[in-house]
Amino acid sequence: MIKRIDHVAVAVKNLDDAVASFEKLFGLKPSKIEEIPDQGVKAALIHIGDTELEFIQPINPDTGVAKFLENKGEGIHHICIEVDDTDAELKRIEDQGGKLIDKQGRKGLAGKIGFIHPKSVNGVLIELAQKV
Amino acid sequence: MIKRIDHVAVAVKNLDDAVASFEKLFGLKPSKIEEIPDQGVKAALIHIGDTELEFIQPINPDTGVAKFLENKGEGIHHICIEVDDTDAELKRIEDQGGKLIDKQGRKGLAGKIGFIHPKSVNGVLIELAQKV
Repeated sequence: MIKRIDHVAVAVKNLDDAVASFEKLFGLKPSKIEEIPDQGVKAALIHIGDTELEFIQPINPDTGVAKFLENKGEGIHHICIEVDDTDAELKRIEDQGGKLIDKQGRKGLAGKIGFIHPKSVNGVLIELAQKV
Repeated sequence: MIKRIDHVAVAVKNLDDAVASFEKLFGLKPSKIEEIPDQGVKAALIHIGDTELEFIQPINPDTGVAKFLENKGEGIHHICIEVDDTDAELKRIEDQGGKLIDKQGRKGLAGKIGFIHPKSVNGVLIELAQKV
């Protein structure tokens, strides 16, 4: 089951600058800033209503986010949708003909997560996340 | 005041195909499909929790959305944030050094709307919307 949009992630070159600039323009501070060495990124989470804006900066050059920045520059990287069961949703989506990046859920910042390929969703990279 | 993320808009080439494909993969149907001749687009709104996913297809080639599709292909076009007062927020953001696309609010699908230039927000096009 699809529950809500958990966060919208924005790839940035410099997390501190992005956070400072967003706070200046919108008056909103991050609730959390964290390094996620597994995923090679540093992330800042900013609550907006029931959803979060997530700024992500690559901390190593081999990550998908680093490649995204090189190819496309700064901008929205993915949308994360909260689901009740990541593995079940991934399976259902694959059965419906969707192309997956992750066949099985794995541990991420937003919970048990899995990515769907942007080719299956009009160029949008979608992460599913189950709160654990 | 910033209230919540009203919608995330995705530029698509064919609205009917995008809607059918999204329904197949995610089991969600649009609550509304509408032509907005003013803005030269056709839009479909899909509720996800407290937020909406908006698919937009250009219906004339002079729109920003048509140019976006030409230059970047399908993908996330903008995020819309609900505010209590579009004009006041636009003014505050400009006073803080933000670059605006709209100096004043105008009528849009999401209410009284105004766009902030992506140069001011790490490559993200942000729409403000006040419910009216």
